[in-house]
Amino acid sequence: MLRRILTRLGPADAAVLGPGDDCAVLRTSGDLVVTTDTMIEGPDFRLAWHRGFELGWKLAATNLSDVASMGARPVALTLALACPRRTPVGLLEEIASGLDAACRSLAPGCGVVGGDLGTAPVLTGAVTALGDLEGRPPATRSGASPGDVVAYAGDLGLAGLGLSLLFRDGTEPDGTAHDRALARLREEHPAALTAQLAPSPPIALGAEAVRGGATAMMDVSDSLSLDAARLARASGARVSLDSQRLLAGFGLQRGERVPLEAMLTGGEDHGLLATFPRGARLPGGFREIGEVLEASGPEPAARSGKRDDVRVDGERYAPRGWDPYSLPLPGA
Amino acid sequence: MLRRILTRLGPADAAVLGPGDDCAVLRTSGDLVVTTDTMIEGPDFRLAWHRGFELGWKLAATNLSDVASMGARPVALTLALACPRRTPVGLLEEIASGLDAACRSLAPGCGVVGGDLGTAPVLTGAVTALGDLEGRPPATRSGASPGDVVAYAGDLGLAGLGLSLLFRDGTEPDGTAHDRALARLREEHPAALTAQLAPSPPIALGAEAVRGGATAMMDVSDSLSLDAARLARASGARVSLDSQRLLAGFGLQRGERVPLEAMLTGGEDHGLLATFPRGARLPGGFREIGEVLEASGPEPAARSGKRDDVRVDGERYAPRGWDPYSLPLPGA
Repeated sequence: MLRRILTRLGPADAAVLGPGDDCAVLRTSGDLVVTTDTMIEGPDFRLAWHRGFELGWKLAATNLSDVASMGARPVALTLALACPRRTPVGLLEEIASGLDAACRSLAPGCGVVGGDLGTAPVLTGAVTALGDLEGRPPATRSGASPGDVVAYAGDLGLAGLGLSLLFRDGTEPDGTAHDRALARLREEHPAALTAQLAPSPPIALGAEAVRGGATAMMDVSDSLSLDAARLARASGARVSLDSQRLLAGFGLQRGERVPLEAMLTGGEDHGLLATFPRGARLPGGFREIGEVLEASGPEPAARSGKRDDVRVDGERYAPRGWDPYSLPLPGA
Repeated sequence: MLRRILTRLGPADAAVLGPGDDCAVLRTSGDLVVTTDTMIEGPDFRLAWHRGFELGWKLAATNLSDVASMGARPVALTLALACPRRTPVGLLEEIASGLDAACRSLAPGCGVVGGDLGTAPVLTGAVTALGDLEGRPPATRSGASPGDVVAYAGDLGLAGLGLSLLFRDGTEPDGTAHDRALARLREEHPAALTAQLAPSPPIALGAEAVRGGATAMMDVSDSLSLDAARLARASGARVSLDSQRLLAGFGLQRGERVPLEAMLTGGEDHGLLATFPRGARLPGGFREIGEVLEASGPEPAARSGKRDDVRVDGERYAPRGWDPYSLPLPGA
């Protein structure tokens, strides 16, 4: 099984030694970034919706975007895959192919250098991604300063829209997928479905952003409002978003109308949220969507009992978005 | 929950940036080695036998030994933990404490730099370990030459003995653990039980072995005979083991008598199997257990239909040991 999976995986340029020994060996030119993310059948994906190829693609993409958001170039992934014994090898091969294709497409030169295969009650994939900073400083969440421009690159709200569509129109009352409805959804909303099932974050723009002077950066996995609030808090500031800019930049994405609400609360797009000094020329692909404000000070927040990290058009906004812990999990 | 877990984890010396951002940032002085290993409730461990602390310890130790077996110094781990909602936070805290304690004890300076927490039907821990080769070449499985000395460092057969004892005396007919029997086992066979539940591989000896001229190395996770066969095949040679040397070196380990059979077929000790040029002074902790022979050529093996990778006292030996796929898995 492992051999059949490994043949689907291309090499990684940075690997001095690839899979097959106790460890792979990597050579990087700068500091290394590392992140890990897991996808588990049930809370994180449904095989009724996700094709194996899409699942592998998404597993790579969500980890690559974390590497990109530090300003690093992804160089290698490891994959720990566990599945029930009844799982067809064909599904695991498709997952491997999707993982490899996402690396080739989104982060050329990056590949899977090691892995682990085991049995589990439900399909479980844990990926660790490694990136090379190539001499650049890392872009953290905490570097934004009042006056900075807030910018975004990638899909925004599309993946969340795709998830809402799947929950509303892709599911029978018993929770299983309705094949015909699913096929129609894929046809009628290709951009939203693809963004949800096999997202393509702008991985190369991470390094570009740091070269372009980004002061802070993160990938948006839970929602723009939630993640902007995290960036604001980490930087000791507030983020103010401009609905007109959001609608002008992201109101229509690849033929799909995206409402402002979906942009602010939809998760899983894995685009890049970054801040730049006012006046800096934004790297191609980034659009201005707001600005960084000074923190409001502890008193007003304490008085109202509410935080004041994110504003939309000047008004205080309660962040919300994707919360994996809020979903019911069968059998858990 | 994540905050309570993170407080149990000490820093990693190599981390320029620790947990809390999209990625951690590491600085190494040489090429980097990376490995990943998963432990899943059911096939890989039972909560009835493993205390949380032991589980975390073992999760770290099994990955650290892969890093050590390349001749690298472990610098960082990432942890992806997923569990049922009913899991007490206390158990996750114990796992984190065990993981951290194993790093401090077995690989000082190494620590957890990132992680992921999610829900799953059974407790699942995936660790990725990173090591610094510090300018040394990696020790692979493929570098052994005929005439080399075969040596071993660490426990041998003890962990397998512990597993056999647990299966025989630690379980009720319905497969659950018998608390009193378990307590007696821990008291009567402390070395075997500890080797199985919270092993302490000789991590620092990995780098020592390479400094001492090791030509090939791997950690023994499935059994000495199985892993020696892998090393032999990767090196295009045969490994001949000497039962007198095995019994003299490992027949009595911390008060526990270990039969030859357990040494040859017991898994999960995670000690280091290495080869050295004949006449080289073995680094302290390694004991000579055999020698590397020329491959027998394809013809005899083809004629008999059997491989001839491992010999014991000159006789052909059919390798066998730990096979996670051979165990029944509830619910899979």
